[in-house]
Amino acid sequence: MKTHLEYEKPMDIEARSMELIATELPHPLDPENEAVIKRVIHTTADFDYVDNLTFTPGAVAKGVAALRDGCSIVTDTTMAQSGINKRALARLGGRTLNFIADPQVAAEAKARGVTRSAVSMERAAALGEPLIYAIGNAPTALIRLCELVQAGEMTPPALVIGVPVGFVNVVEAKELLLRTEVPSIVARGRKGGSNVAAAICNALLYQAAGARD
Amino acid sequence: MKTHLEYEKPMDIEARSMELIATELPHPLDPENEAVIKRVIHTTADFDYVDNLTFTPGAVAKGVAALRDGCSIVTDTTMAQSGINKRALARLGGRTLNFIADPQVAAEAKARGVTRSAVSMERAAALGEPLIYAIGNAPTALIRLCELVQAGEMTPPALVIGVPVGFVNVVEAKELLLRTEVPSIVARGRKGGSNVAAAICNALLYQAAGARD
Repeated sequence: MKTHLEYEKPMDIEARSMELIATELPHPLDPENEAVIKRVIHTTADFDYVDNLTFTPGAVAKGVAALRDGCSIVTDTTMAQSGINKRALARLGGRTLNFIADPQVAAEAKARGVTRSAVSMERAAALGEPLIYAIGNAPTALIRLCELVQAGEMTPPALVIGVPVGFVNVVEAKELLLRTEVPSIVARGRKGGSNVAAAICNALLYQAAGARD
Repeated sequence: MKTHLEYEKPMDIEARSMELIATELPHPLDPENEAVIKRVIHTTADFDYVDNLTFTPGAVAKGVAALRDGCSIVTDTTMAQSGINKRALARLGGRTLNFIADPQVAAEAKARGVTRSAVSMERAAALGEPLIYAIGNAPTALIRLCELVQAGEMTPPALVIGVPVGFVNVVEAKELLLRTEVPSIVARGRKGGSNVAAAICNALLYQAAGARD
């Protein structure tokens, strides 16, 4: 059985998808944030992100500039890390970092009675580099990051992508982030996810590389 | 700054999340499919999955039985593979498989003018094992799989999780799958994703292992 559906070129499909998304938007988007919002909708088929994505002033420009400077990206899950275009990131001089699977992180989390996600953020902060933090899963990662920032105990992040998903502590953790001075991109409310975190990173990467958006 | 938000145990948070989801469901769920639907909502915070998730008769029971028999899971993306609880799968004797990053798959796709996703499904089918196929991204993977099944050119899948996301060929690919005889779990419409594919695998795994659901 052959079908007309198959085997279009992925880049053609992406371009047509972005056109379709543009025609279905409920209202015009801020041009500065448009590429990020459209890529998240492309990843989720969920137009709720048109209005729940929240950008602190200049957040996209700051993220793009950081990536052009070779900034690396820390994620809270291996799934978000897996979704980031590592080739595009490497061309700019950056890499992805993730400490969640480190046995020492697990041991320390258990000993202190905290989450592995929170300890993994401490590990990233201890590198002393300005990093992009992409958090798509664990509100405790985001909360610990906010604490470290507020206490002046870390090099300020270049950008925090705060898009954990879920029903417990998630809304509150995102609002906590928005009350800090850190440049951030946040999916307000319950929605988000590792796929959303990776999509936002990729939208910034393609802008930084001057391609695909 | 300390906050009451932080450092709850992940398993407690999950249990509370599942309770919250249960209270917000728009209508009762089929008990057979409830664990899968709730885990997808847990992963997405999107109640659209209550009604768009479609199960062929006995699909959950067939997936659980296959996993108990040591069945492996093929994914169309490394991101879906990354989200599957590989420890739980290994305890049952299964493993995850993914061929998308194989340079030979890329070379063959280029030579034939087809997608890497489609060729990666052919690679899995060529193993001659009954497998669970979890497709969260590429409609062309799903379409190629349907073609191979319809042509009798592969060992029938134990289950197909057909949840690609997007705007081009996605709805049609899912309907194509539902017209086959293959046991399937499908997110009808545009929604889905690698995270949804992994969540469905994990819900089946936890049922197969007799824990967490």
